[in-house]
Amino acid sequence: MRPGDDLAGMIAARAAREGVLPGDVVMVAHKVVSKAEGRLAVLADVRPGPAARQLAALTGKDAALCELILSESRRVVRRRGGTVICETHHGLVCANAGIDSSNTPEGTVVLLPADPDASARRLQARIAAVVGGRVGVVVTDTHGRAFRRGLVNVAIGAAGFEPVVDHRGGRDRGGRTLVATDQAIADELAAAAGLYMGKDSGTPAVVASGVATVPAPGGARALVRERAHDLFRT
Amino acid sequence: MRPGDDLAGMIAARAAREGVLPGDVVMVAHKVVSKAEGRLAVLADVRPGPAARQLAALTGKDAALCELILSESRRVVRRRGGTVICETHHGLVCANAGIDSSNTPEGTVVLLPADPDASARRLQARIAAVVGGRVGVVVTDTHGRAFRRGLVNVAIGAAGFEPVVDHRGGRDRGGRTLVATDQAIADELAAAAGLYMGKDSGTPAVVASGVATVPAPGGARALVRERAHDLFRT
Repeated sequence: MRPGDDLAGMIAARAAREGVLPGDVVMVAHKVVSKAEGRLAVLADVRPGPAARQLAALTGKDAALCELILSESRRVVRRRGGTVICETHHGLVCANAGIDSSNTPEGTVVLLPADPDASARRLQARIAAVVGGRVGVVVTDTHGRAFRRGLVNVAIGAAGFEPVVDHRGGRDRGGRTLVATDQAIADELAAAAGLYMGKDSGTPAVVASGVATVPAPGGARALVRERAHDLFRT
Repeated sequence: MRPGDDLAGMIAARAAREGVLPGDVVMVAHKVVSKAEGRLAVLADVRPGPAARQLAALTGKDAALCELILSESRRVVRRRGGTVICETHHGLVCANAGIDSSNTPEGTVVLLPADPDASARRLQARIAAVVGGRVGVVVTDTHGRAFRRGLVNVAIGAAGFEPVVDHRGGRDRGGRTLVATDQAIADELAAAAGLYMGKDSGTPAVVASGVATVPAPGGARALVRERAHDLFRT
């Protein structure tokens, strides 16, 4: 995948060949989205400022990488040793502002898409046109979590369906009203895709069939808990 | 599902009928596990102590429920309004110590299994015997997350496979050594199952086929980040 490559066209063509149906959801690893969108940075071209040099000294990371981490972030949420947890300009809380250096050309790193929801919408429109009906699209990234070990795939972009399903006011099987049961279905779809997107498998897209989704414009921003409602960010 | 019901036998029989194969993973909602194991509490039988009465006053929750929340917890990690985030005796960080009052008889609540990994091992042995080969088992619960809106299914018990796959030392497709890529595969399986276990669907078990897992005793405790390594718990 190179900057300017027609990722949407490639996925749409493959979706047609594979028989993707209306109602299916296509999960796409952000890395191919970022590469197609030219969201690559050559470390040798980056001039680290004083804050980046300080972060590099504290973490042992490359100063140019630290400059990119800071420029992709609103703020550093936590730092310990070489671990830097950032809040990105999208509001995502993740290590290194989501910047990734695996499966990239030597000396370059991959940034997150500038607007992953817009990326998802573009992919969605192209795939839906080929499939002949509504499909969902999730752009995924691999994040660590507070409290739990290990990384899971999460949704950083979404289009074509409601990413958080609000069951509140529904009834349980005993007829009692359900409370506080927002389901982060886009994250569950992303996690499911993670089972088939191994780190070395070169599988950048996975299709889910048979999952009930609610038609909607989408928008993974709905999965970002506002800071005022977050008990752990501050 | 009632205390003493043979859940393992029911799932094993169904697994045989559905053609579950060696290598498949069966995800089971903890609620049926808890019910079969008798992990129910009748609120009217609970005597709230002073700490529970204080928590009830602060949160507006039932004092008996607060007593159960506190007795199921090592500590309260965060509290705001009616939200009580606990660290359970298993080390899980979740709301209300995982105590749930939907889909239960009136006046009763469901506690988490006392040892969800042991529950998973018991289910695993019975299902594997029927299937005639290794299967994986995940016991799931629905948790909120720091930073992100919405609930996702996570693994609170696991047996028969490695719940966290360590890709470190492996190579990316460009030959570069991978760092820090522990994959929480048991959580991704749990999340995938969440797509099919609706709050009102009465689907307590879901099978995953075609997911590569590494044979191992299992143990979802491996998914609990130790407090010393957690940047957000304290």
